[in-house]
Amino acid sequence: MNGKLYGIGLGPGDPELMTLKAYRLISGAEVVAYPALKDGESFARSIAADVIPVEALEVTIHIPMTVERGPAQAAYDKGAQDIADYLEAGRDVVVLCEGDPFFYGSFMYLFARLADRFETEVVPGVTSVTTCAAVAGRPLSARNEVLTIIPGPLDEAVMQDRIAAAEAVVIMKVGRHLTKIRKVLDALNLTENATYVERASLPSQAVRPLADAPASAPYFSMILVTKGQDPWLN
Amino acid sequence: MNGKLYGIGLGPGDPELMTLKAYRLISGAEVVAYPALKDGESFARSIAADVIPVEALEVTIHIPMTVERGPAQAAYDKGAQDIADYLEAGRDVVVLCEGDPFFYGSFMYLFARLADRFETEVVPGVTSVTTCAAVAGRPLSARNEVLTIIPGPLDEAVMQDRIAAAEAVVIMKVGRHLTKIRKVLDALNLTENATYVERASLPSQAVRPLADAPASAPYFSMILVTKGQDPWLN
Repeated sequence: MNGKLYGIGLGPGDPELMTLKAYRLISGAEVVAYPALKDGESFARSIAADVIPVEALEVTIHIPMTVERGPAQAAYDKGAQDIADYLEAGRDVVVLCEGDPFFYGSFMYLFARLADRFETEVVPGVTSVTTCAAVAGRPLSARNEVLTIIPGPLDEAVMQDRIAAAEAVVIMKVGRHLTKIRKVLDALNLTENATYVERASLPSQAVRPLADAPASAPYFSMILVTKGQDPWLN
Repeated sequence: MNGKLYGIGLGPGDPELMTLKAYRLISGAEVVAYPALKDGESFARSIAADVIPVEALEVTIHIPMTVERGPAQAAYDKGAQDIADYLEAGRDVVVLCEGDPFFYGSFMYLFARLADRFETEVVPGVTSVTTCAAVAGRPLSARNEVLTIIPGPLDEAVMQDRIAAAEAVVIMKVGRHLTKIRKVLDALNLTENATYVERASLPSQAVRPLADAPASAPYFSMILVTKGQDPWLN
């Protein structure tokens, strides 16, 4: 009998923001897989480090950070094959995912390769989006507001159109796109409505008005923008 | 010295999708507050029921389900006052919140009334949005896709415009708006791209193609719509 595949959301970084279910499944895991950079560094593994059993087998999926599709596809092909080997040997495999597996996560590439052949369960996790709102003390969206989540790499003109048409906005994966995003928000007169958050829930977390954001931002940074205040608030 | 206020996200309904932090804070709580319907039923309390200490004091905030602003505002005023009384007496107060406190949650109304006077911490939770994607086996958003979250009560014409302009879409709080939403998605030829999910993560959970959705939907139901598949998936 084949093993079962789990895609497990670990939350935004603070290990205490892991769910009880994630904790149970990881602490009982025989095989733990996770994405890592070329040098082996894995943010997902670091979140779960204290929960992974010492005797667990570990599968590292090295994801090349290239713009082209080919190298990453090949890495997911290989990772999926490594995982499939364990599943076919009857072992369950737990895949560690930063945040939530299906919210801008790489797990979906393994899911697409494996879920039709193996029993698969996805365990949702706390996203960085609601974590940023929590640490910034800024409600994300209320009542009938539409919430638009925009990835930082989006083209400048498209981004400007999307933000202009939106109500509550979260811009994710800010990183090296910070200068472009500031320009867009300035053009829309929204800089005063914007809060910058980096590494939410980690010890190095920072929260600032966008006007006071640093010149360069880490990949794990985000900008929250609201256009008006819910009139029901007070 | 005043007590500290906590707004705690409990996740979508399965108590195991609570975070370790929520579990720790609730299991050590002296005073636990939560919103409830007029008859006293509280979904938030039901999620945390097995974690609340038997000796904890409980504050029920009865929220009237009216369209007008006044009655709900009065209920939040009273709830905030009850909580403030405990905080001023030096007791910490834990407010239980379905999903995430700042994601379409009622906690923001207490936060607006109390956070300037009392130390406050918001603990994010797993949202129903990523939970629906997980149980439906449908990735929400990948790479540079914009994700638009639309509340079901939105006006029909506005909803149609928003969905037409969007890429990945989640429609929340479907409930009695199901007929209107089906009409909108039919008009946009998106019914085949839509998945209906009710009570994600609860024992009564249901997942269906929208075409097979029931005639009436509970408040805790959602529709996921994708317009195309990420070409990187395979």
